[in-house]
Amino acid sequence: MTTARPVLRTDYQRSVANYWNHEKDPVNIKLGEVDNLFHHHYGIGDYDPAVLEAPAETRDEAIINELHRLETAQADVLLDHLGDIRPEHRIMDSGCGRGGTSIMANARFGCFVDGISISETQVEFANNEARRRGVDGKVRYHFKNMLDTGFETGSMQAIWNNESTMYVDLQNLFAEYARLIPTGGRYVTITGCYNDVTGGRSRAVSQIDQHYICNIHARSAYFKALADNGFVPINVVDLTAATIPYWELREKSSVATGIEGPFLTAYRENSFHYLLIAADRI
Amino acid sequence: MTTARPVLRTDYQRSVANYWNHEKDPVNIKLGEVDNLFHHHYGIGDYDPAVLEAPAETRDEAIINELHRLETAQADVLLDHLGDIRPEHRIMDSGCGRGGTSIMANARFGCFVDGISISETQVEFANNEARRRGVDGKVRYHFKNMLDTGFETGSMQAIWNNESTMYVDLQNLFAEYARLIPTGGRYVTITGCYNDVTGGRSRAVSQIDQHYICNIHARSAYFKALADNGFVPINVVDLTAATIPYWELREKSSVATGIEGPFLTAYRENSFHYLLIAADRI
Amino acid sequence: MTTARPVLRTDYQRSVANYWNHEKDPVNIKLGEVDNLFHHHYGIGDYDPAVLEAPAETRDEAIINELHRLETAQADVLLDHLGDIRPEHRIMDSGCGRGGTSIMANARFGCFVDGISISETQVEFANNEARRRGVDGKVRYHFKNMLDTGFETGSMQAIWNNESTMYVDLQNLFAEYARLIPTGGRYVTITGCYNDVTGGRSRAVSQIDQHYICNIHARSAYFKALADNGFVPINVVDLTAATIPYWELREKSSVATGIEGPFLTAYRENSFHYLLIAADRI
Amino acid sequence: MTTARPVLRTDYQRSVANYWNHEKDPVNIKLGEVDNLFHHHYGIGDYDPAVLEAPAETRDEAIINELHRLETAQADVLLDHLGDIRPEHRIMDSGCGRGGTSIMANARFGCFVDGISISETQVEFANNEARRRGVDGKVRYHFKNMLDTGFETGSMQAIWNNESTMYVDLQNLFAEYARLIPTGGRYVTITGCYNDVTGGRSRAVSQIDQHYICNIHARSAYFKALADNGFVPINVVDLTAATIPYWELREKSSVATGIEGPFLTAYRENSFHYLLIAADRI
Amino acid sequence: MTTARPVLRTDYQRSVANYWNHEKDPVNIKLGEVDNLFHHHYGIGDYDPAVLEAPAETRDEAIINELHRLETAQADVLLDHLGDIRPEHRIMDSGCGRGGTSIMANARFGCFVDGISISETQVEFANNEARRRGVDGKVRYHFKNMLDTGFETGSMQAIWNNESTMYVDLQNLFAEYARLIPTGGRYVTITGCYNDVTGGRSRAVSQIDQHYICNIHARSAYFKALADNGFVPINVVDLTAATIPYWELREKSSVATGIEGPFLTAYRENSFHYLLIAADRI
Amino acid sequence: MTTARPVLRTDYQRSVANYWNHEKDPVNIKLGEVDNLFHHHYGIGDYDPAVLEAPAETRDEAIINELHRLETAQADVLLDHLGDIRPEHRIMDSGCGRGGTSIMANARFGCFVDGISISETQVEFANNEARRRGVDGKVRYHFKNMLDTGFETGSMQAIWNNESTMYVDLQNLFAEYARLIPTGGRYVTITGCYNDVTGGRSRAVSQIDQHYICNIHARSAYFKALADNGFVPINVVDLTAATIPYWELREKSSVATGIEGPFLTAYRENSFHYLLIAADRI
Repeated sequence: MTTARPVLRTDYQRSVANYWNHEKDPVNIKLGEVDNLFHHHYGIGDYDPAVLEAPAETRDEAIINELHRLETAQADVLLDHLGDIRPEHRIMDSGCGRGGTSIMANARFGCFVDGISISETQVEFANNEARRRGVDGKVRYHFKNMLDTGFETGSMQAIWNNESTMYVDLQNLFAEYARLIPTGGRYVTITGCYNDVTGGRSRAVSQIDQHYICNIHARSAYFKALADNGFVPINVVDLTAATIPYWELREKSSVATGIEGPFLTAYRENSFHYLLIAADRI
Repeated sequence: MTTARPVLRTDYQRSVANYWNHEKDPVNIKLGEVDNLFHHHYGIGDYDPAVLEAPAETRDEAIINELHRLETAQADVLLDHLGDIRPEHRIMDSGCGRGGTSIMANARFGCFVDGISISETQVEFANNEARRRGVDGKVRYHFKNMLDTGFETGSMQAIWNNESTMYVDLQNLFAEYARLIPTGGRYVTITGCYNDVTGGRSRAVSQIDQHYICNIHARSAYFKALADNGFVPINVVDLTAATIPYWELREKSSVATGIEGPFLTAYRENSFHYLLIAADRI
Repeated sequence: MTTARPVLRTDYQRSVANYWNHEKDPVNIKLGEVDNLFHHHYGIGDYDPAVLEAPAETRDEAIINELHRLETAQADVLLDHLGDIRPEHRIMDSGCGRGGTSIMANARFGCFVDGISISETQVEFANNEARRRGVDGKVRYHFKNMLDTGFETGSMQAIWNNESTMYVDLQNLFAEYARLIPTGGRYVTITGCYNDVTGGRSRAVSQIDQHYICNIHARSAYFKALADNGFVPINVVDLTAATIPYWELREKSSVATGIEGPFLTAYRENSFHYLLIAADRI
Repeated sequence: MTTARPVLRTDYQRSVANYWNHEKDPVNIKLGEVDNLFHHHYGIGDYDPAVLEAPAETRDEAIINELHRLETAQADVLLDHLGDIRPEHRIMDSGCGRGGTSIMANARFGCFVDGISISETQVEFANNEARRRGVDGKVRYHFKNMLDTGFETGSMQAIWNNESTMYVDLQNLFAEYARLIPTGGRYVTITGCYNDVTGGRSRAVSQIDQHYICNIHARSAYFKALADNGFVPINVVDLTAATIPYWELREKSSVATGIEGPFLTAYRENSFHYLLIAADRI
Repeated sequence: MTTARPVLRTDYQRSVANYWNHEKDPVNIKLGEVDNLFHHHYGIGDYDPAVLEAPAETRDEAIINELHRLETAQADVLLDHLGDIRPEHRIMDSGCGRGGTSIMANARFGCFVDGISISETQVEFANNEARRRGVDGKVRYHFKNMLDTGFETGSMQAIWNNESTMYVDLQNLFAEYARLIPTGGRYVTITGCYNDVTGGRSRAVSQIDQHYICNIHARSAYFKALADNGFVPINVVDLTAATIPYWELREKSSVATGIEGPFLTAYRENSFHYLLIAADRI
Repeated sequence: MTTARPVLRTDYQRSVANYWNHEKDPVNIKLGEVDNLFHHHYGIGDYDPAVLEAPAETRDEAIINELHRLETAQADVLLDHLGDIRPEHRIMDSGCGRGGTSIMANARFGCFVDGISISETQVEFANNEARRRGVDGKVRYHFKNMLDTGFETGSMQAIWNNESTMYVDLQNLFAEYARLIPTGGRYVTITGCYNDVTGGRSRAVSQIDQHYICNIHARSAYFKALADNGFVPINVVDLTAATIPYWELREKSSVATGIEGPFLTAYRENSFHYLLIAADRI
């Protein structure tokens, strides 16, 4: 008989939260430890093939450093598309994981950043890290549902999802963002999406869904949901070719999780794209 | 520079066709051999627990006979919802597999039946079977794409999909059926669909997708696409509880394929429904 | 210059309220007096033909008892579809009439029930009855408009309309319910709807509209409006055949109102269906 | 198994056709005999009160002449809105009844007129009348369904419905007209429609529906369906006040059918409007 | 980081506000000085040709008086369509300019009038004028954005735009009005709109857009946006022929601004209409 | 009474055709004469500032050569996004002007190219040029309306509009392209579009509309119409910064037409974007 709305509302959300509360994948932890920027996304750009030829005792570390460099490069490209962010602005890192991109955004723009996640473990980890770096006055992480953040209407100059839209319904997601972002604000996502042109969800795409308990959307679903909710693209970049080297290197690394094969298959067979979309709120 | 439209148009369709051209799963073949009604769908109703206690030398056969009985019972329930079909009517078995339900429909109504499949192997198998039974004058199987059958407008009094809608876009599918079925005709499907209420695609659902290279739709997607294309439900039956015994028996049988676990998990955790929908063309 | 929104907003709503404020139809009053469960809906199931052969002095009472039994059976089928309702839940009887189904729901589930009606006479009658039964702590009736109840967002685990949707616009109605029912809650209606398949509104359907000053919707309108407002069917049952006996018996009874003929014509000519729809809020 | 599409497709259409095949209402026949312009619509404008005071032996005829004058005035207002029709144009009288307005249109513009009706009796009557007047070279009546005329795409410079849209689905109707009318062509209707503002269908409106086995649409439905099908209003005239005198006179005449009361009630209580809409095909 | 929403939100709105803050066009000022009713719209009706033949010393004044008479006549026609406005009602003049029509509305109905404008200069001018006339108790002007007025939900019995819709998005505009106007309230606009039938925006229409930094909408856009937001037309009047004399006279006057040519061209070539639309809120 | 559909259907189309039939702008003719590639679009990339310092007798020619180089660079970027075009493919240059880009496409891919224009003068000019170059076996120009080309369904592997979409309705345009392009084909446009973010059409944008009798669309209109018609973006590039140098150089050249100022203003004030969109047909 209460109307209080819990952060986790469905069995599905509870299972995703549970997954991330317990996840301790070396590919996220070890790479993060390179410079204490913890990411939960993939990388872009060519890797230095020399790392594969490094002496046995340093080879593993060299590869991990290189993977981390590519991840950070990806986050930089995402931040390049946030538009003109000023120190007094507030921006939101939606599905922030352990918080790495928020730290980078604050360092670049000097602005306020609110990261949100449905994993309480991640939120706690990220807030500790912000305190340790002394940026907790401007960078804060919250245990919140991205479909219903409770933040004030019009409060966010920009919002991004770095590989976290596959856990939610896009229409509901962008409806919430349309509420949070004022006219002229910006939305950016980097995401994997399956290719409407080659047809339905391929086996490789379903393997990724199963691995992460996620629900990869069709490319068309992004453009439909953005248009329906008052967002207009200004830049769209097909990053598929740029992300393949990351996966090839990771497949050969000690932190491979087994999902590398399906990603490489999906990208190469053209059933899956790695896409950046930047859109303006109108 | 040609405009001829091939049956198989996308990489995805080619991969599905390839799967079924080579499939020789005992769960389909052995069960079909019981009475030469070959099905590609699951069963409903309680099984006789005595089959599990049968002597070793007949136990396997007893279980297979029982599974086949449940499959046939499912097809009978589907046919119960086709409405008033008369001998001069023409009806379509969309995604007909090796043709069992078409044979049953012709036997019950005396009508013309056109089964279609994108697997040439299945089509050939089914036509041979129709000839062997002497019903090839009224039951014919075709190598055709259900999204674009080429059959004449208004030619089908009824169409059904028995567990074959997860391979196609529902909007495109029902647009084609809206063309084929005249006002007052009937559409019936039995399908697994994921539950919008529990949220996104669960891990068990993705395992099923991956196994069959399919793309299970949300329950809501069926009702949206039917409404958008001029179909109005008249009966909807939640068969989830009725299909669980079939899977429990199959899991214990010699023809288990390994996908039994994900199905049972998905049904029991309520992330997946086994649904019959009967709708009128208006 | 005020923004206070009255319960009755349109001339139409005022005329409907007026009808029910003055209605004292024996078919509702006399049947209710059998066991003080007052219904404003029809019945389902076969009647006992013996009542027609009862001796003159008891025949009338026997028929009335039988009609009331069928009405109560209908309400029981409706309650069967409300899902898992627990004592702490709150549910809403929308268009509650003199309150009978609310009493039954509270008796079955032990939960809180809010009945609403735009007839102040009915609301007063029903609250008196609840007090008399000593359930007024959990069963309350309100003078409210179902399009704008003022109840708190997310406060109702389930809502039903037992033959009361023909007085309102379905899009507006389900928009309000989408607000009231949280994710995973249930909506159920039993309603008469005209058949899109046989074409427009038949004469018999217009006679019913005229009798009750109502506006019977097309079957398709229910599915369209549910889909548009975030409700997904889980069960749909065509009760047409099951309700015909009720009307046949009522036609022969002392409480016939004259509308029995149009109902029987409409059902038999297939221009009208008696439908139960159960749908989940997603 | 044929795809030929009959003119009458649904039970509803058959019942409407049957009504009009047997209708011999004096209010249509006697008024038509005044000058052999047979109308099936109502009139507008003030009547001459002197007719009510005419001597007993001529009073009836005087009233009938006056009613007919008002009917013809209504048809003239409709024709005023057809735009610039030239002798080589072809225009369509959709739901032409016994053909009066088609005759008037040909007389005014010299153009080709195709009248259509689902009553074979009316079509035959109207063609005989055209022959008798010697205009059958340019005025032809056809037994056709207005939802699917079979006329060539783009063939009609203008189409009108004079009180005949309440028998069909407006979306389907205007889709067919969008096909028939080329860019820049015109559509005109005069119709009764119920008032969305006062709420649902009033009792008086349902009485009219029942009398004519029709399905009066909401005012909003016209504008929605026109917009959806590429028609843009250029003039909308509320003729309600102008038609009330016609009904008041008719109520006092010998040709009253009993439906006069509901019409007057509906107009006066503001639950019903008599509306002319002229729209351009874009 | 604030969520306060400024009246002027986009560069475009600021440029329009700037235009009107500095506008001192004699065609508005001099005509207003005739009787201190300051309009920012055009006129309708025939002019008295005698004014052109007036003696040199009074000719200019005679023409200006005549132009002002036609402007006032236009405002009167608009007010004729507001429906039944009573003294206790509150109505809104959206895009009120220097406030003339608001004064006329208050004088006619005795009701409360709120005029709004994004030009602070106009708002101040109009409030001074209301004070001077002693009607500032009921007529108030506000510096507000018509897309987001901040007025209370359901507070306005009627709203009109007199030639001010070409500065805003119609969907957003009518969404705000749907919030402000209760069921049964009225919306009226007089506006220039380009003609979908003749195709795209003609050169003359673009000249008008450029002159006023506005964005003339297609005729179809009005009906689409009204339907989408719960407004149903009750009267639509094509005033094109009625406004041409005003422009012909103005072209010959001392207050011509140079835009007269494009208006006359656009009206005469039929690429532009001067339209009144009255619609009910449902 | 004919249904033949003329190429030019509306007054607007006739006025546009008339403009281009008579246009002999040196900025198009003189630049084309550099190498007989005649373009009707603008350029991108930095210009060589040395051309401004060239000696008086060659300065003019140097600037014209440089402008032409930037135009050709723009066409090359467009062709880069057409995807994998093979010699047997057929592609369409929609709004081809004097045909330059078609020639470049054929030279690059060896494929068939159909250019279409509503200017008969341009079509004749372009066909002569194709014959002169000896490519008329594969490159053909047609007098056709891009909204209704008459080409066969599925016949075009790719279609592009190089600055020609501002003359047509985008929904109608992409509906025709959806018919022409098979699944997996590509659509590319480079276009100026006004910026929804800064609000309505600015004065500079209206000046451009007026100059070319065109109707510049909002950026959002492109994404909405693509989504509605089965096209999904794969790359979107904001070319605004890249096109400004072209306009700055042109403004200083002998071929300036006077429209350079509005373009520079519109780009610099951010009310206008120069956008490339590449989208897949699904």
